[in-house]
Amino acid sequence: MFEAAELGRRVSKKKFQALEPELHTKLLEAQRSLSKAEVPVIVIVSGVEGAGKGDVVGLLHRWLDTRGIQTHAFWDETGEEAERPRYWRFWRCMPPQGTIAVMFGSWYTKPIIDRVFKRCTAFELSQELARIRDFERLLIDGGALIIKLWFHLSKQTQRKRLQADAKDRARSAHTSPTVEKFSKRYDRFAEVSERAIRETDTGHAPWHLVEATDHRYRDLTVGRTLLSAIRARLQQQLPVAAPPRVTEAPNLAKLDTAVTILNRVDLTRTLTETRYRQRLSRLQKAIRSLAWQAFERGVVSVAVFEGWDASGKGGVIRRITRAIDPRLYRVISVAAPTDEERAQHYLWRFWRHLPRKGHMTLYDRSWYGRVLVERVEGFATEEAWKRSYREINDFEDQLTQHGIVVAKFWLHVSPDEQLARFKEREQTPWKQHKITDEDWRNREKWDAYERAVNDMITHTSTGYAPWTIVAGNDKRFARIQVLESFRERLASALK
Amino acid sequence: MFEAAELGRRVSKKKFQALEPELHTKLLEAQRSLSKAEVPVIVIVSGVEGAGKGDVVGLLHRWLDTRGIQTHAFWDETGEEAERPRYWRFWRCMPPQGTIAVMFGSWYTKPIIDRVFKRCTAFELSQELARIRDFERLLIDGGALIIKLWFHLSKQTQRKRLQADAKDRARSAHTSPTVEKFSKRYDRFAEVSERAIRETDTGHAPWHLVEATDHRYRDLTVGRTLLSAIRARLQQQLPVAAPPRVTEAPNLAKLDTAVTILNRVDLTRTLTETRYRQRLSRLQKAIRSLAWQAFERGVVSVAVFEGWDASGKGGVIRRITRAIDPRLYRVISVAAPTDEERAQHYLWRFWRHLPRKGHMTLYDRSWYGRVLVERVEGFATEEAWKRSYREINDFEDQLTQHGIVVAKFWLHVSPDEQLARFKEREQTPWKQHKITDEDWRNREKWDAYERAVNDMITHTSTGYAPWTIVAGNDKRFARIQVLESFRERLASALK
Repeated sequence: MFEAAELGRRVSKKKFQALEPELHTKLLEAQRSLSKAEVPVIVIVSGVEGAGKGDVVGLLHRWLDTRGIQTHAFWDETGEEAERPRYWRFWRCMPPQGTIAVMFGSWYTKPIIDRVFKRCTAFELSQELARIRDFERLLIDGGALIIKLWFHLSKQTQRKRLQADAKDRARSAHTSPTVEKFSKRYDRFAEVSERAIRETDTGHAPWHLVEATDHRYRDLTVGRTLLSAIRARLQQQLPVAAPPRVTEAPNLAKLDTAVTILNRVDLTRTLTETRYRQRLSRLQKAIRSLAWQAFERGVVSVAVFEGWDASGKGGVIRRITRAIDPRLYRVISVAAPTDEERAQHYLWRFWRHLPRKGHMTLYDRSWYGRVLVERVEGFATEEAWKRSYREINDFEDQLTQHGIVVAKFWLHVSPDEQLARFKEREQTPWKQHKITDEDWRNREKWDAYERAVNDMITHTSTGYAPWTIVAGNDKRFARIQVLESFRERLASALK
Repeated sequence: MFEAAELGRRVSKKKFQALEPELHTKLLEAQRSLSKAEVPVIVIVSGVEGAGKGDVVGLLHRWLDTRGIQTHAFWDETGEEAERPRYWRFWRCMPPQGTIAVMFGSWYTKPIIDRVFKRCTAFELSQELARIRDFERLLIDGGALIIKLWFHLSKQTQRKRLQADAKDRARSAHTSPTVEKFSKRYDRFAEVSERAIRETDTGHAPWHLVEATDHRYRDLTVGRTLLSAIRARLQQQLPVAAPPRVTEAPNLAKLDTAVTILNRVDLTRTLTETRYRQRLSRLQKAIRSLAWQAFERGVVSVAVFEGWDASGKGGVIRRITRAIDPRLYRVISVAAPTDEERAQHYLWRFWRHLPRKGHMTLYDRSWYGRVLVERVEGFATEEAWKRSYREINDFEDQLTQHGIVVAKFWLHVSPDEQLARFKEREQTPWKQHKITDEDWRNREKWDAYERAVNDMITHTSTGYAPWTIVAGNDKRFARIQVLESFRERLASALK
């Protein structure tokens, strides 16, 4: 593969000077169009040592409007990064829509180096490359453009280049030992890199192999590659959010008798006040102790609360948090996104709040909004929300692989019970803020939501992150069911 | 002082139940008004061990709309926090306008504990308390409401409370050793706390001492304190941004002859192309090497570039960055704030991007926008921008005390030179994006800006963070002047 980048291509100074102004101007135009089209761009700069990757980064900052470009370099993980799932550090650096992130070092660096130094098996590398394919697919489906540049030098050229650098005292004095080791293993590095490139050279995020022997050829190639990739992206038909789909009025009788996940929930179950008090107190004690154990052992947990309006999510969350030291948990109430959040992939705002080691985050509504409200209201296209099941499963897979306990609760109530609670809210002064016109409007779409919930549970109740469906008509019964289930999940994670 | 909180005040269950609903309702109303008025609220929860601070945090989450409240607990610093000036961790948690942040542990915790365990001197504590006063003053001037609650128990009550807790296995098993040590030193703790409270009990951010013996009295007091503090804040006349002040046309002849900082700059100095190339290359080599040394020794630097439109800020920044490994620096181009930034204190967005250990951030425009564009355009009130000099000096003082090198450059050009550059920009395709109608409008306000720049330099050129005024009519001369000055600052920091 790399032979294609050892052809000795050169560009004369004269030719470069003749071509650069136009390229520069066109790149700026392209950047402006990207910004208008609100496309986030990720430029991955990778390749062999000595190819001048740093110079390329400088070049991009010179050619492009610096207000819309940011370079991110990935060194060793910080403590805060190491406490989260591996991709957290990349999510932190995702470019907002309309801006460009240059990734100097990226998700490719560690897998390749680990394999070069045999810190992982060939199979593990394959797995990791599959993860990368999924990740890039998700970003592209979310509207991003990914431009992957691999800078290549032949073995001889690299040797000469590094020898020249070694004479330059300022440079050589600061070349890290890893880098030296690294360049000695040219062949091994080439072999692993070739494999990584091959397995991640997808139609939507292709690799661009750049011959880096001549710096003018290299720079011109970078500029042209960027320009054509940006232009191609801008010509694509952008996915437009579908107008709210008018779902036909379903045959109610039919829906009532059909066996779905939700209508199999036995909503008649109740608990007496005495039994409730006893069990609540026992469960809260147990959870308090488990939360401390989790803290000491660095176990992270994430609990997701979804449910019908007025199904009692807030009350359940408070019963849990009252048991736990406030330093150990955080409640995220998911409301309208901020504009920084809106300018990102829909999962970004949840990655953002992932808890640190030993801590717990309770999400009052969550990423499942994508397949509930966004589906029903038509905020996401059908293609987008259908794709989300897999994206969400993959997200939760990354959490659980990092050792995070993921607990998900759907609080179910009957339409009649909801109506009674809405009315009560309207009549209780300190509950009035909880009931809005939107709640009444949502209620009218009960059937559409019911279908969405059934689909959601079907698609996303996985072995590693199962849904607990809670019979919510009796608040006491519901609370105990949630606390009991949460206690179990925590206890088994701490066994 | 604490005797006032040992009076044995109690509230019966009946009375509490009678009073709570109204309080609850009114608090919710107050929260809604706060949100509309876009006031950020900081509630500090502190006090003796065993007073039920955790329960109070839970209570606040129960009483208030959880979508607008977030609790932050401050444990030991993370690695990323330790790499920044001390207040970075608090700036990270600042509530956006209209929301409430409950600080469980706060900027008070460490100074008090350090003094209790004699890890700092009485003098150092005083200094720290003065820092806190300034910090709270700055937040309040920025529009925040700070409610400081101190929960108190008498010595006997605390002993009983902790003994009872000790019987509760789940609780005692997880009481950290520090806490135990802590409660043994009741008197010492009371003495230090009293001093901390006294020295930070200011008119704009008073302490509220809460007797915590009876939990119903405690809870009711918390609710009432919050309510009255919020109401008082909402009744205040909010500072409204002044309309743009029409500054009188100055007597130009007079201004020309007056000796100001700017018009003493000798703009006739130039450098030949050959001399420039030689010196540039030498300086870039030196800076490259210094940047690596800084990385190895964990020295952080921050460079600020301000100057007239078209004074060559971008070109200067690129001459520096081209010398440095892209992994070591970051350029922040300050443009319009995002809405998350707009919902915060004006310094928040700069705290946010402070570099990590060994790294460098170059700000293309900076916090000085406050006393330049915001002053001239009337975006900030006169009172606000005048206050900013001190806030900015204090900010930079915190940076330098943390060992950060702060370099500030004002790129000065004459009005004629600017005009020539504007015209050149209009005629060069890849420079056209750099010239807008706004630049022309700014140019008309040259005199107002000139006054603002002179004031800015007068007020903020400190010994620890001096301004370098750059003679910018000749780009080559200007670049060398900046690089030379930057090299010197770095070199002396690394001596």
